[in-house]
Amino acid sequence: MSRESKLTPRSEDYNQWYLDVIQAAELADYSPVKGCMVIRPNGYALWEMIQRQLDEMFKDTGHVNAYFPLLIPESFLQKEAEHVEGFAPECAVVTHGGGHELEEPLVIRPTSETIIWSMYRKWISSHRDLPILINQWANVLRWEMRTRLFLRTTEFLWQEGHTAHATEAEAEAETLQMLEVYRRFAEDYLAIPVIPGLKTDREKFAGAVRTYTIEAMMQDRRALQAGTSHNLGQNFARAFDVTFQAEDGERRLVWATSWGVSTRLIGALIMCHSDDKGLVVPPRLAATKAVVVPILGKKADPERLLAEARKVAAETGLGRAVKVDDRENVSPGWKYHDWEQRGVPVRIELGPRDLEQDQVVLVRRDSGEKIPTPRAGLERALADQLEGIQAGLFERARALREEHSYKVDDEEGFRARIEAPDGFLLAHWCGDEACEIRIQEETKATIRCIPLDAEPEQGSCPFCGKPSDRRVVFAKAY
Amino acid sequence: MSRESKLTPRSEDYNQWYLDVIQAAELADYSPVKGCMVIRPNGYALWEMIQRQLDEMFKDTGHVNAYFPLLIPESFLQKEAEHVEGFAPECAVVTHGGGHELEEPLVIRPTSETIIWSMYRKWISSHRDLPILINQWANVLRWEMRTRLFLRTTEFLWQEGHTAHATEAEAEAETLQMLEVYRRFAEDYLAIPVIPGLKTDREKFAGAVRTYTIEAMMQDRRALQAGTSHNLGQNFARAFDVTFQAEDGERRLVWATSWGVSTRLIGALIMCHSDDKGLVVPPRLAATKAVVVPILGKKADPERLLAEARKVAAETGLGRAVKVDDRENVSPGWKYHDWEQRGVPVRIELGPRDLEQDQVVLVRRDSGEKIPTPRAGLERALADQLEGIQAGLFERARALREEHSYKVDDEEGFRARIEAPDGFLLAHWCGDEACEIRIQEETKATIRCIPLDAEPEQGSCPFCGKPSDRRVVFAKAY
Repeated sequence: MSRESKLTPRSEDYNQWYLDVIQAAELADYSPVKGCMVIRPNGYALWEMIQRQLDEMFKDTGHVNAYFPLLIPESFLQKEAEHVEGFAPECAVVTHGGGHELEEPLVIRPTSETIIWSMYRKWISSHRDLPILINQWANVLRWEMRTRLFLRTTEFLWQEGHTAHATEAEAEAETLQMLEVYRRFAEDYLAIPVIPGLKTDREKFAGAVRTYTIEAMMQDRRALQAGTSHNLGQNFARAFDVTFQAEDGERRLVWATSWGVSTRLIGALIMCHSDDKGLVVPPRLAATKAVVVPILGKKADPERLLAEARKVAAETGLGRAVKVDDRENVSPGWKYHDWEQRGVPVRIELGPRDLEQDQVVLVRRDSGEKIPTPRAGLERALADQLEGIQAGLFERARALREEHSYKVDDEEGFRARIEAPDGFLLAHWCGDEACEIRIQEETKATIRCIPLDAEPEQGSCPFCGKPSDRRVVFAKAY
Repeated sequence: MSRESKLTPRSEDYNQWYLDVIQAAELADYSPVKGCMVIRPNGYALWEMIQRQLDEMFKDTGHVNAYFPLLIPESFLQKEAEHVEGFAPECAVVTHGGGHELEEPLVIRPTSETIIWSMYRKWISSHRDLPILINQWANVLRWEMRTRLFLRTTEFLWQEGHTAHATEAEAEAETLQMLEVYRRFAEDYLAIPVIPGLKTDREKFAGAVRTYTIEAMMQDRRALQAGTSHNLGQNFARAFDVTFQAEDGERRLVWATSWGVSTRLIGALIMCHSDDKGLVVPPRLAATKAVVVPILGKKADPERLLAEARKVAAETGLGRAVKVDDRENVSPGWKYHDWEQRGVPVRIELGPRDLEQDQVVLVRRDSGEKIPTPRAGLERALADQLEGIQAGLFERARALREEHSYKVDDEEGFRARIEAPDGFLLAHWCGDEACEIRIQEETKATIRCIPLDAEPEQGSCPFCGKPSDRRVVFAKAY
């Protein structure tokens, strides 16, 4: 049960505020194993909503789910040179099983390209076996030194799509299609505006030819990478010798993509929308969309009021997504506070006077606005308010991003802006990795992405002065 | 793509038939890691249907989902004496992480009682914090020497419910409620008749006070344990020092239950219903409930026929659960065979003559029966056939079980019957573990359960002659 406690305000200590929101809403807890977290029921309900919607979108685009083993032979990782370099240092290693030392150590999957492509080798022989459009919902493990609930944990939950194609063009189309699925999901469901773009070579996935990303701005104006989609070229097909007989009879290497989002999205959702009162959940992601709070006054008949509260819940048409707060011995005020901390989008107040007037009072979590509503039209009125909150949260987040996105053209301006940190810096970049590294070392800003819709524009790198033909997004990031 | 191949008949080699069915329907594959399996899309679709339905039933009974860490400190297992004895020998052990040797080895969860009760200690302090009704969908690992796809694998997927209660009576009621959920699910969805009952002390879960089970009979008349529900008493509360302040102000130990079913259910489903042609899936569990096969004759206009096949699919009202087989260059006969192997409950044939007569022909997977059906009434007729198949599979399985359940009263009769193996032996048992062990060693039969609905009946143990007051179920088991 959440405590009647005040959260640290965002203005005072943003990081502590984030942890306070999680604790007050009972989203997650620290586990006895360093770096691993427990996702509590309120937090897991968010993950279930994310899963349900994304899974629907994956299936609408022709994908099916499967499940591959947790444990991967250490030698598999080593088959792709960049991949092993990127992931081997983060692996947890199983050396004993069933009371015996293993002949070959097994790593717990940090990602599943290698085990999956070892199977694709068995399954693909002809062009008729392609494409393979598989997704997996799973846990993965990456040993992290500095962890943070939801944003960076040693174990996390995610989905990883792994597709196999006959042509390079088809693989690239798939990579971009899934990036677009992520963009739609982030904007239409999480209510988080994102910039879809290409990662620089330095920031791409270990083993990819090209990595695309969606980048979001949090309320402290830092960037958060919310999902990635990789064109893996023929790297894994080469490493695992996966070829197919083409229609012309020739054997060719298969083309690959992979793409994923994780429980990190819950961290993004918290940091993007919540306020000093606690969690704010976009209605489409809320397992509990409304809660009915009966207000017992001196004149009220408690049994009748509670019975009417249950009727009101039924009148919302929300099924399991509406709750009645029938707790005794706590005041309505305490309940309001409690549900605000948990981020329920709409509170439905029902007092003796409302009963007389055959109405309820809707209270919006986002604005606090109170809307007296006749019970006769409740279902429709509530649905409208929920849609209004959903749209409002997105607009507010977009306005914040617009307000804190700046074109900068010289080094001095760049350095001044990034100090704050003050959002997204749209700057030219020479394309040189040395320059990218220097900027990161000196300012802590990284290139978040080269936006897909970047307009061609002649300019010069603010640090080295070399020419550039479009702006990229720099920011400090989570 | 499945091959046009004949399966080993059940009568010839039941075990090979089981593996042939899995391969032909592309349900699972062996992984490079010994004892672990890959669940292929067709197999995973069955797991998704199981998950969706069970999750609904868990939520209807007030449960919520959460997620606890994969890795458990080795010392946690040791806190409950019987638990560590049961599970430690089966554990996979992580000794290195992030490039360093760990101070304390971590085991990959074989089951999550210990990690969960270490958290419940933090979350429970008052009677107001109870009950806790949490379920988890997760992967677990138990090192197995002799594995078998779906039935016994080192890694498997499951759900594990873990509840905490203020009273012993409440915990027992929860244990029995979840057993009943499993019974309903097995019978109404998997179409597998089961016997709910109590396990003997020898067969109970390591750490439980009482284990309840649902036991099913496979087509080879062996028993399969399909789900278990444990009353854990105060064993884990004691091990992890989890107490609550009761309404009377006293501190008391918390009462616990846990309950689970796993991907083993897919093995049960295969072995219970499939035939020598391949997989048979009960319609309520089938992700693809029907497939439309256009039959191109010499007179047929291929484009028109395919367009009509798509219209027929839409007319079924099944959405994503109906497919149109538009593959070229393979004959209708080949397609029939292919979909039969995959267990799709109904095939919808559409040829030029059907077009003329504005009808289709429904072909049932269970019986092969062909049912000409006017297109005007297709949706309803198909739904009726699907329900008919569902009910028919259950009845067939129940008839098999009835036919092969025998009352035996003397040792000679017991030994003769169990040799075959020939089903469930309903026999008296003295209640003595020594006798239970002797019977198992000499006949390989184990006590599957003491049925909950066993009628009181005076008798004597066929092996030792000591008195008994009800019959138990003996069988050879998976």
